Amino acid sequence: MNNLKNQARSFDLAGYLKSHQDRINKHLAALLSCGPEPSRVCAAMCHSLMAPGKRLRPVLCMAAAEAAGGSADKAVLQAGCAIEMIHTYSLIHDDLPAMDDDQLRRGRPTCHVAFDEATAILAGDALLTLAFEILAGCAKLDPEKAAGILESIDVISKAAGYCGMIEGQMQDMAGEGQGLALADLKQMHELKTGALIRASIETGGLLAGADEAGKQALTTYAGHIGLAFQVTDDILNVCGNPGRMGKASGTDTARAKSTYPSLMGIDAARDYAADLISKALQAIEIFGNKAAPLTALAAYIVERDK
Amino acid sequence: MNNLKNQARSFDLAGYLKSHQDRINKHLAALLSCGPEPSRVCAAMCHSLMAPGKRLRPVLCMAAAEAAGGSADKAVLQAGCAIEMIHTYSLIHDDLPAMDDDQLRRGRPTCHVAFDEATAILAGDALLTLAFEILAGCAKLDPEKAAGILESIDVISKAAGYCGMIEGQMQDMAGEGQGLALADLKQMHELKTGALIRASIETGGLLAGADEAGKQALTTYAGHIGLAFQVTDDILNVCGNPGRMGKASGTDTARAKSTYPSLMGIDAARDYAADLISKALQAIEIFGNKAAPLTALAAYIVERDK
Repeated sequence: MNNLKNQARSFDLAGYLKSHQDRINKHLAALLSCGPEPSRVCAAMCHSLMAPGKRLRPVLCMAAAEAAGGSADKAVLQAGCAIEMIHTYSLIHDDLPAMDDDQLRRGRPTCHVAFDEATAILAGDALLTLAFEILAGCAKLDPEKAAGILESIDVISKAAGYCGMIEGQMQDMAGEGQGLALADLKQMHELKTGALIRASIETGGLLAGADEAGKQALTTYAGHIGLAFQVTDDILNVCGNPGRMGKASGTDTARAKSTYPSLMGIDAARDYAADLISKALQAIEIFGNKAAPLTALAAYIVERDK
Repeated sequence: MNNLKNQARSFDLAGYLKSHQDRINKHLAALLSCGPEPSRVCAAMCHSLMAPGKRLRPVLCMAAAEAAGGSADKAVLQAGCAIEMIHTYSLIHDDLPAMDDDQLRRGRPTCHVAFDEATAILAGDALLTLAFEILAGCAKLDPEKAAGILESIDVISKAAGYCGMIEGQMQDMAGEGQGLALADLKQMHELKTGALIRASIETGGLLAGADEAGKQALTTYAGHIGLAFQVTDDILNVCGNPGRMGKASGTDTARAKSTYPSLMGIDAARDYAADLISKALQAIEIFGNKAAPLTALAAYIVERDK
């Protein structure tokens, strides 16, 4: 464990993030090329997809492929980009007036504010649809990965579907003002945020041809960092700087939403996140040095300020 | 041609439709099994998906597979069911207050009326996502079809996406009260309705392993019947019986939407639909007797009363 933590400290995460984020942003722009006179719905898709984001899910997908002994090749990059599109569609729909009614996202007006409600609904639908088009397209980049790609589509669609992310959003809305218990809050987050993060990491492993032990290690790591990510998000919503985060802070309190800080206290929430990260790192010890990016990313998830 | 028309007359379409629709309805229910206490979003998905419908897209998918020398086996049935889910999601979202604001669909209150707007948005999202899950799952039913399934996901997602069905809905909303010219109306319908009908038929051909000539014949047939379907829909919106159709009639006129009857006159619109069907039948002559279901379905599309 200490060895892994030292490894994380010596790893150049800033350089790793920059090079991977650059590749992701370039590939996203190539996958959604609307031309000089884009249609209105395409402009709305670009507005949300190309807003500055951490690109955490595709980065995790690529780092998982590297940990499992593969490389972050073009098919892995493209699968990660598809997951980023699914994440973006979910943000567009969650921000709608009928749901969370948010005005600011990734430092830009939300899609329905910048365009209109109908366009935002359709732009979200279109990003979700495009995600599966480009997932299928991964097989053209590397026909040998066809079986892994079909399995990834299965994993990703289950994570994003009505037993995963969508059920999480339903529970989140139902929980507003209800005072959820900690177990319910945890379940809601595992569905709403955790499921797609887990799918990102599992997809990297699948496309890299991970063996059973490798797949299991990645799934355990993913479960813990997904939860740690959400605990940190809740802490940032209380303590964060809206300018830096690109979205409003304090909104959870205003909506009387249960959060980890509100249920556990802020210090206990920080300890909980740190404990989850320790468990995540333990799971990926089997990958040795190849896990350096995943290790550094786990630390980043709880230490980020946006 | 006359031979084909005779064939259509002697073919037992009612029996064919009933047996195929029964298989489709049973398989849809198995694919979306919410259990005795379904979650709210699952109940909303069932409300819309299991409402009585013609199941035209899966029937066409199965008939196309049969015409191309394959059979309507379980993988073809399942792919057709996935397309029906995409069709249903598009109806749920098009009916939303921010779009067409419709109250009645398939004889039931629309999804946002029966549930609420947020649930309807998420139920649509979930059906779209589930469609790709079960498309990927077709490979488990028949691993030999893996390549055809990946190609079908590509065809279906392009048809449903921002250059297909979604762009059609954008153009439809933009055209309200604008007095579209005939060419613009045709383009809008080719995107909004035609693209997914074409994808249904192409998917049947792909999964049956159609050769290039077969694929081309199916695409030509599909283009013509897709347009004929919409011309007939417009005629029914003017002349139809709301009780039989399960949705309101006269709504296009109320919204000052351009339609084939409003631009061409009702008799010319009927002639146009008949001409499209003739061209569709010509294209599938190469399949001989195996095209009997597709032939009868083409006639049904313009002769239906709902």
